[in-house]
Amino acid sequence: MAELEGNCLVGQSGGPTAVINATLAGVIDEALNYECIEEIYGSLNGVLGILNEDFIDLASESQQAIRGLRASPGAALGTCRFQFKKEADYERALEVFKTHDIRYFFYIGDNDSMATAAKLNSIAIEQGYELRVIGIPKTIDNDITRTDHTPGYGSAIKYVATTVREMASDSEAVGQGDYVSILEVMGRNSGWIAAGASLCKRRDYPHDPPHLIYIPEVPFSNEKFIEDVQRVLQCEKYCVIVVGEGLVDSDGNYVALGSSSTDAFGNVQLGGSGEYLRNLVDKTLNVSARSCKLGIAQRSATHCASKTDSDEAYLVGQDAVIAAVQKGESGKMISLQRTESESYACETGLADLGEVSQGTKRIPKDWINDDGVSMNYPFIKYATPLIQGEVKAPFENGLPAFTKLKRVRVDKQLAAYEQ
Amino acid sequence: MAELEGNCLVGQSGGPTAVINATLAGVIDEALNYECIEEIYGSLNGVLGILNEDFIDLASESQQAIRGLRASPGAALGTCRFQFKKEADYERALEVFKTHDIRYFFYIGDNDSMATAAKLNSIAIEQGYELRVIGIPKTIDNDITRTDHTPGYGSAIKYVATTVREMASDSEAVGQGDYVSILEVMGRNSGWIAAGASLCKRRDYPHDPPHLIYIPEVPFSNEKFIEDVQRVLQCEKYCVIVVGEGLVDSDGNYVALGSSSTDAFGNVQLGGSGEYLRNLVDKTLNVSARSCKLGIAQRSATHCASKTDSDEAYLVGQDAVIAAVQKGESGKMISLQRTESESYACETGLADLGEVSQGTKRIPKDWINDDGVSMNYPFIKYATPLIQGEVKAPFENGLPAFTKLKRVRVDKQLAAYEQ
Repeated sequence: MAELEGNCLVGQSGGPTAVINATLAGVIDEALNYECIEEIYGSLNGVLGILNEDFIDLASESQQAIRGLRASPGAALGTCRFQFKKEADYERALEVFKTHDIRYFFYIGDNDSMATAAKLNSIAIEQGYELRVIGIPKTIDNDITRTDHTPGYGSAIKYVATTVREMASDSEAVGQGDYVSILEVMGRNSGWIAAGASLCKRRDYPHDPPHLIYIPEVPFSNEKFIEDVQRVLQCEKYCVIVVGEGLVDSDGNYVALGSSSTDAFGNVQLGGSGEYLRNLVDKTLNVSARSCKLGIAQRSATHCASKTDSDEAYLVGQDAVIAAVQKGESGKMISLQRTESESYACETGLADLGEVSQGTKRIPKDWINDDGVSMNYPFIKYATPLIQGEVKAPFENGLPAFTKLKRVRVDKQLAAYEQ
Repeated sequence: MAELEGNCLVGQSGGPTAVINATLAGVIDEALNYECIEEIYGSLNGVLGILNEDFIDLASESQQAIRGLRASPGAALGTCRFQFKKEADYERALEVFKTHDIRYFFYIGDNDSMATAAKLNSIAIEQGYELRVIGIPKTIDNDITRTDHTPGYGSAIKYVATTVREMASDSEAVGQGDYVSILEVMGRNSGWIAAGASLCKRRDYPHDPPHLIYIPEVPFSNEKFIEDVQRVLQCEKYCVIVVGEGLVDSDGNYVALGSSSTDAFGNVQLGGSGEYLRNLVDKTLNVSARSCKLGIAQRSATHCASKTDSDEAYLVGQDAVIAAVQKGESGKMISLQRTESESYACETGLADLGEVSQGTKRIPKDWINDDGVSMNYPFIKYATPLIQGEVKAPFENGLPAFTKLKRVRVDKQLAAYEQ
């Protein structure tokens, strides 16, 4: 493979995860190894930074800062909830790439971002501009296809499962056959995060919480829900429920639209399924119930991150650079592939960006028990390795200390772009 | 002081904290040191366990289990939301104490529990039954009088401040002048927990989140709230808000009654102040806002507990036993008293149970800045030492492993009690 000389650009998009900055660190560390890469730039706020030429010089950041990224939540480059809307946006992006001699572009994001990266790759080919584009998956939702799982998922469910186990200790102490605790977690179209809470259940301890898990994959009915809760309270002193935000009824309508606004992509902003269930319990059973909603805390809880997840997030960053530089790959997404060994091991692979961006991965039906409210062994086997190990975050004055980049700006060379 | 021979009983009451079991461990460890104490019993579900003679033998638990209590959330003995209602309840309690030769009673709880302990002490004196009763404070709310702070508070605000700092990293990454994140925390009558989030603000970094803190001590107005948010969004890319559940308007009415039911003590179950503020932002400013509600997670987050708090929780347990056995004290609550030294140090003291139980400690007015939405240096100086150090919780298979007691039952000797 002929070496491609030029500059490298990396951007972050969508909702952050606890380990999205570990991926950024992996890209930077690996890119530093190659003489063919002259400058390592970061695009501020994803593709918005491309349109506006908002680049920072990542190579000038301290090694300490780059190492610190591995235990810092948020997204050090900023993300965007913006997608290219028109051809002119793509044309502008190519103009900016040419101006700054960007030959490598790494985009850390979810399905929407993979679509953007795929199209950027196509346009570069059309224009005969040699560019290598690699997408790097990230999302706590675990709903990207063509990868065994997504970086960010393991940490999210480690945090959720930890919270459920702690909440359950509280509820067990307080409960006397009449105490219902509800935790609402994220998951617009899939129940991966809610399902992850089932890792609290120890093998051979069927009474372990969570007692009921409600996910978008299983149509919801008020009547069955009330029956489920009654059944649990008949044999337990308390009932712990985990519910995904995107619960739907048998007609496919969202059950709870607590906050019925839409985001920049036209997606309905969900929320309120926990309060919805709490109200049902309160009104129908006359039983004390409390709901909690972790919200964005669950995508930023680096203090409770999974070491396995963090290491894999770093690895996909590194391997994206290796694929582009050493193997000349482009138009691909780095994926995680579980090896077929006795103990858990994972290596990276490559998937076509165009194919990745078109599907949403949901929990296989046969990983859900017939009761519709619990996961079975294949799920547990799948998810358990992803939460192993703890990330040691540095503490300062009693609180986790996070890295902020200096953000040394790269000079703009073009006129401002009118969006 | 003449030695008082007999058995010792300990109970836990009210909402658990991350370190209420550390206090239990302190009581057990210290009680084991005295020959005059024959048996160490635990009362299941607080004073309910006394009425029902539901006692367990704590001395028969393994040392490993007792040590494990120091990193286990919930309340190992179970708590109750029940208070003695009539004279007969107190009479029964004394009868049970006499039957089991209980001469030392330690009650770990909040204001309500201190009142119960005070009355038990009085009745024992009336009846000429030699009994030593010591109350031990616990509550994440920090609203018990006659103590510098309450065990449980430091861990709660360490967790809340950690969460706010992480959420803020997320919001900063996503925000572009239009992103509002709201975290609702507990605090029915006082804003101690919400105020604790201000520990995220580093000295000399005025832009650090949280940008706005709303507490029950400061009357709330919709108009000022909207102005506050607008002011923040004019100079920051994002706005992080922390709000206590018990927000009141200038007439003293609760602002948000998301779940307007009452608990067993007739207290209104609050909740929904976060969603209330989110709705206000959404409707008035047309700005994207998200709310999270930690709920019972904030009183059970042992994985993020403060070492200082955990050690002090253990200490008050030990010193309660020392006060009763060595000093012959009764009718007192163990308190925490800050010493007047340059660096933080804390020792225990004793306060009269009857006096303790009658007040609610609120944040001093002069610890709140004139803007009504931030804390000043005296608060920071007060709260910072309480979150120092981390409790190393044992992890097993990727999740924190908690201790459960064997709960070896003590034989009942009386007829069942009709409540």
